[in-house]
Amino acid sequence: MALAQLAQVERNDAGIAEAVGIFRQRFGDAFVTGHAVREQHSHTTTYIPSQLPDGVVFPKTLEEIQDAVRICAEHRVPIIPFGTGTSLEGHVNAPGGGISIDTSQMKGVLSVNAEDLDCTVEAGITREELNAHLRDTGLFFPIDPGANASIGGMTSTRASGTNAVRYGTMRENVLSLTAVMPDGRAVTTAKRARKSSAGYDLTRLLVGSEGTLGVIASVTLKLHGIPQAISGGVCPFPSVDAACRAVIMTIQMGIPVARIELINALGMKSLNAYSNLGYAESPCLFVEFHGTEAGVGEQAEMFGEIAAEYGGGPFLWTNVAEERAKLWKARHDSYWAGLALRPGCKALATDVCVPISRLAECINETEEEIARSGLIAPIVGHVGDGNFHAMVLMDADDPKEIEAAEAFVARLNMRAIAMEGTCTGEHGIGQGKMPFLERELGAGVDVMRAIKQAIDPLGIMNPGKVFTSTSG
Amino acid sequence: MALAQLAQVERNDAGIAEAVGIFRQRFGDAFVTGHAVREQHSHTTTYIPSQLPDGVVFPKTLEEIQDAVRICAEHRVPIIPFGTGTSLEGHVNAPGGGISIDTSQMKGVLSVNAEDLDCTVEAGITREELNAHLRDTGLFFPIDPGANASIGGMTSTRASGTNAVRYGTMRENVLSLTAVMPDGRAVTTAKRARKSSAGYDLTRLLVGSEGTLGVIASVTLKLHGIPQAISGGVCPFPSVDAACRAVIMTIQMGIPVARIELINALGMKSLNAYSNLGYAESPCLFVEFHGTEAGVGEQAEMFGEIAAEYGGGPFLWTNVAEERAKLWKARHDSYWAGLALRPGCKALATDVCVPISRLAECINETEEEIARSGLIAPIVGHVGDGNFHAMVLMDADDPKEIEAAEAFVARLNMRAIAMEGTCTGEHGIGQGKMPFLERELGAGVDVMRAIKQAIDPLGIMNPGKVFTSTSG
Repeated sequence: MALAQLAQVERNDAGIAEAVGIFRQRFGDAFVTGHAVREQHSHTTTYIPSQLPDGVVFPKTLEEIQDAVRICAEHRVPIIPFGTGTSLEGHVNAPGGGISIDTSQMKGVLSVNAEDLDCTVEAGITREELNAHLRDTGLFFPIDPGANASIGGMTSTRASGTNAVRYGTMRENVLSLTAVMPDGRAVTTAKRARKSSAGYDLTRLLVGSEGTLGVIASVTLKLHGIPQAISGGVCPFPSVDAACRAVIMTIQMGIPVARIELINALGMKSLNAYSNLGYAESPCLFVEFHGTEAGVGEQAEMFGEIAAEYGGGPFLWTNVAEERAKLWKARHDSYWAGLALRPGCKALATDVCVPISRLAECINETEEEIARSGLIAPIVGHVGDGNFHAMVLMDADDPKEIEAAEAFVARLNMRAIAMEGTCTGEHGIGQGKMPFLERELGAGVDVMRAIKQAIDPLGIMNPGKVFTSTSG
Repeated sequence: MALAQLAQVERNDAGIAEAVGIFRQRFGDAFVTGHAVREQHSHTTTYIPSQLPDGVVFPKTLEEIQDAVRICAEHRVPIIPFGTGTSLEGHVNAPGGGISIDTSQMKGVLSVNAEDLDCTVEAGITREELNAHLRDTGLFFPIDPGANASIGGMTSTRASGTNAVRYGTMRENVLSLTAVMPDGRAVTTAKRARKSSAGYDLTRLLVGSEGTLGVIASVTLKLHGIPQAISGGVCPFPSVDAACRAVIMTIQMGIPVARIELINALGMKSLNAYSNLGYAESPCLFVEFHGTEAGVGEQAEMFGEIAAEYGGGPFLWTNVAEERAKLWKARHDSYWAGLALRPGCKALATDVCVPISRLAECINETEEEIARSGLIAPIVGHVGDGNFHAMVLMDADDPKEIEAAEAFVARLNMRAIAMEGTCTGEHGIGQGKMPFLERELGAGVDVMRAIKQAIDPLGIMNPGKVFTSTSG
């Protein structure tokens, strides 16, 4: 995507210069303007070109975030919240310059309430750091996007991952959060009760708002008990269609599958090559069950029977932790394995999510188009949710390849929308998908604009993301 | 609660008179101004006095709702969305007059997508009607507030019921909805995909907005497979504390309990008297498990062992449908059984919800206060969520009794808030709980006000509910 295609944000040079001076005074060494650090803070995991902020501040407390926001508000300077920078749609870019607020110095675990199965953490802690902290409690936080993202960033993009089919996404797992609003006030969106009918659902409004409504400072999360027993395995299928039928039946039978991931034939080929494995090079489902010893055995057997009905199998499963770890390591390496299919290339991630009844059709049409167009694009999917990623490998220095890849992504997004699906299941809109949000939700985007205008009238919160301030 | 204590809404007499004339012309017999119908549409299930709308319109289509809203917008006339009128906090009252939009003529099931486990229905269908419609599909819609409420109404108040601990509340079970916004535009908040990161979560913003942001016309709901097997039973405990400990342990062990309901000693006494039953008159848990034949047996046995650890039991459970039906009939009769404790009285419902670790403490303090004050108030609770209702019986014609009951409720609400809980787990704020929303969420209410002002700048959507337009 060329810079010119991204939403433009006018630069307020005078305000930025003043704010940078004040930040230097107020934050000292915790405010950095060196090129390398600014570059790193606008680095995106995709091919979207970097747009550097003018400075990066590293607050250590809620109050320091408030101070940073107030300085920016006073001088009408853009604020770009930053977690770990692993987002995929240019969320951390600074199209109008401004200040990146990096929460990586805020990793505190403020409370763990084991009896309530919840915890409150500062926004900068990563999901792996949180799970390391929880190690001795018998509890864990399940949401696992590919990257070791920060909890604040995951909240901002409404992230999920491989086990959303069982545990939900960030939407279901954030109980409450504290955000610094564009005027500098701190707002806690809800109490810690499991359910509430007390007014508008501000928690869910902030979850997935991609830094455009406030800076998330801390988050109260649901935790889950580490299952007594886990079983899992890999099952090959004769076709994507057969695999999707098996997924639908598994879910319809109420089998509480914890993970059910599809990798298509090309994806399996890349895994075998990358890690020297011997899996079948046909569409495979990677599945996992969580529960009691008896339960997970029963579930695995039921799944094996369903798979066989659709021509799948053999379903080889295990409850030995080491073997499972190997299997999921292979699944989690799929990004790197995919990249290795065409060394030196960049990957363009796609993220459509459709009703599960349309999933096979959507993947089939996409595979056909990949074959027709000559693109190299393995597919992995969180198919229990109807969500899949085609990873388009391209030479990011070749405008023709970029154009072809972008045309492919556009058609894929529109295909998903036509099938009552969404252009983004878990990555967010950011800069890359703005045109598709309009196509997907129409007048709903005007409601979002009204909300944005009401909460951030100066337009300083992560401008140039999600939608433009005027329709069209 | 005296009328004078409710939020005041100024009447726009001229606008209302004009609008009534236009409604007559446009809607003919589907617009009613007779006193009895207006009275029925402001009837609340509580003691909050009625405030009648000036007319009631019965739209049959989305377009008719849009017309009704446009007429009201043009003449600045309040709109009060109406489902079945079973809400508990005065939600359907018309403090500034205006037009009640009754969706009871809109009961269509627009689609059932069995493979996707979802359906789309018009707002006026009730939960029992929906489940009757689904009878042959093997699917059901689990959310079950006490009343046979409409899906639109349940969406508006973010309702739940006895099995939220397993299936979630309306927050988790509404996938998307179509609402007529205050300017008459219809907005569909999301596509039908199971998860999405596409922009602000308008679905969750509308869920629980109590008719103050738009009129809900249709709703896409998650459905669930009817479980293969169900087991359930009743288990007495020596104390509320012991019962709550058992609940915490059950949930912490990851036992996927479908229902876990507490009835306190007075509540059990009322049930026995009302239905001539022979239950122990000590705090009891009513529990139910959904799953496979083997699974529900295992779960019931594990629960029995946990109960015994805390001095509870005997836990008598069954998987015979008729016996279970009897048990849950008794539970569902608890409202009427409670009323029968003091014939001729009205009940004031409370609805606090606290983190489960504070539940025993919260119920104990509440029981102590009931004992001290001489009130009669049995307690039933959806204790898996930390939510309970104390049902205060009072002579609604005796100002002293009302005052005592209201003081009790105020202290209960503040107790829950102090324990990091909420004043309302599932009933909503309506008119009755407005002062407590401020105490609970502070500056968050200002964010709600900003959103309300942005979406409904004329203030015509259900005015005088949830919060006032200015702080304080």
